[in-house]
Amino acid sequence: MNSNLEKTYVVGIDIGGTNTVFGIVDARGTIIASSSIKTAGCPTAEEYADEVCKNLLPLIIANGGVDKIRGIGVGAPNGNYYTGTIEFAPNLPWKGIIPLAAMFEERLGIPTALTNDANAAAIGEMTYGAARGMKDFIMITLGTGVGSGIVINGQMVYGHDGFAGELGHVIARRGGRLCGCGRKGCLETYCSATGVARTARELLAARTEPSLLRNISAESITSKDVYDAAVQGDKLAQEIFETTGTILGESLADAIAFSSPEAIVLFGGLAKSGDYIMKLFRNQSMIMC
Amino acid sequence: MNSNLEKTYVVGIDIGGTNTVFGIVDARGTIIASSSIKTAGCPTAEEYADEVCKNLLPLIIANGGVDKIRGIGVGAPNGNYYTGTIEFAPNLPWKGIIPLAAMFEERLGIPTALTNDANAAAIGEMTYGAARGMKDFIMITLGTGVGSGIVINGQMVYGHDGFAGELGHVIARRGGRLCGCGRKGCLETYCSATGVARTARELLAARTEPSLLRNISAESITSKDVYDAAVQGDKLAQEIFETTGTILGESLADAIAFSSPEAIVLFGGLAKSGDYIMKLFRNQSMIMC
Repeated sequence: MNSNLEKTYVVGIDIGGTNTVFGIVDARGTIIASSSIKTAGCPTAEEYADEVCKNLLPLIIANGGVDKIRGIGVGAPNGNYYTGTIEFAPNLPWKGIIPLAAMFEERLGIPTALTNDANAAAIGEMTYGAARGMKDFIMITLGTGVGSGIVINGQMVYGHDGFAGELGHVIARRGGRLCGCGRKGCLETYCSATGVARTARELLAARTEPSLLRNISAESITSKDVYDAAVQGDKLAQEIFETTGTILGESLADAIAFSSPEAIVLFGGLAKSGDYIMKLFRNQSMIMC
Repeated sequence: MNSNLEKTYVVGIDIGGTNTVFGIVDARGTIIASSSIKTAGCPTAEEYADEVCKNLLPLIIANGGVDKIRGIGVGAPNGNYYTGTIEFAPNLPWKGIIPLAAMFEERLGIPTALTNDANAAAIGEMTYGAARGMKDFIMITLGTGVGSGIVINGQMVYGHDGFAGELGHVIARRGGRLCGCGRKGCLETYCSATGVARTARELLAARTEPSLLRNISAESITSKDVYDAAVQGDKLAQEIFETTGTILGESLADAIAFSSPEAIVLFGGLAKSGDYIMKLFRNQSMIMC
């Protein structure tokens, strides 16, 4: 008998810049129990790992104990699957290289794998979600940043160093906006939530026509504000979404030339701009989550 | 006993717009015999297949006969590995979809696989050449067009329809030069041999400074002329190569963000512009063939 058959559940941990969400999941992908903590509440990675475990352990115990858990899967910004480390993540409070998979293993005694958050999303969609049964697709996460997870021949693409799938950092506009990565014109600077807000501020400053967005102070505008205004028929907000969708569509067309996927799966709030993006594609499926 | 052990050789056929080169190759990659015909000399694909076989068969017979040949591998522009067909190749004289693998199998009774020429080059470099032992690399062929073959996790990337690896058709300049594919600004329109000649014509028309290239009639300038002038110290020709190298470097940097390869292998006459391209990269190897 394989003792793994006794291990009914896995634990998933999703580390975001604001919140860390974790849960216990069964083999069918159903979340049995979940909770969350504030990521930025812990000044050191050690305290953070302690805090996650302190909140996660009661859930594990309530569902049969550590022996029932087959493994832990962690999705994290700048996560490296090969080493189980988070490396120089600009949106997390801990600097340098953090061996987080080892830190969880040490504290809980459960095998732990860690990868980039967009890769984790791609594996999730391939196993339980929109990309079930697909062997060639690209997952795009449109959040604070732009992430991507690429599946080719049914396998995640990690690249030789674990950092493949950085479509947020292809150049959408040569010599364009300065990106946190140090380059100029990265897709992320236009098509993330922060990129949309940046486009809004630029357009409001450059133009004079009325807009619902003028009721909000420029520095506090969010992509949600732009979306709400667009839905209410605000022309400037609609133009911002159209520009965003065009730039995203152009970059995704280049990605299609690369790997010819059967689908691109868009995830995150900005996926609602789908109508603007769809018209740029002909042969590929586009799935909004 | 596996009868394949008796089959000592394979046949390779490289179909180009001008010449078709074919040869008999042993298991160590040594070419035992080879010959070529003019591709464009045959008005129909049937006559072409007859002509290749007529010239290839004597080589096969001189080396032990059809029983000694394990298989035929064909590299062709717009070749589809999944179907063994050439599909709408703009640089070949036969239009539509040509089932060329089946046509060779029928004529010679030897199993035949066909793929895109850049994919075939990538497999060759992985097996016998510059990319031996590599699992993640990108092969770029800089010829009349720009082709690419992508290897990830040790496997060729074909995509869901067999047409992955079309880096010649990522957009290097939005709204730029019209490409044979119908889009504008494709990498191929700048960084192929024809693209270099096009840059030369544009620069000679737009500028007034002296150049060795002014001794050649504009419409007959080739990339070889530009290279020869650059080597002789011609400033305008050097600028053309620098522009070409910059555009290629920018597009390859985006490809690196996609698959994080351990190396990019450049093949073809323009790979000589390597010095201009190298400085745009930091962590990846660049191999010129």
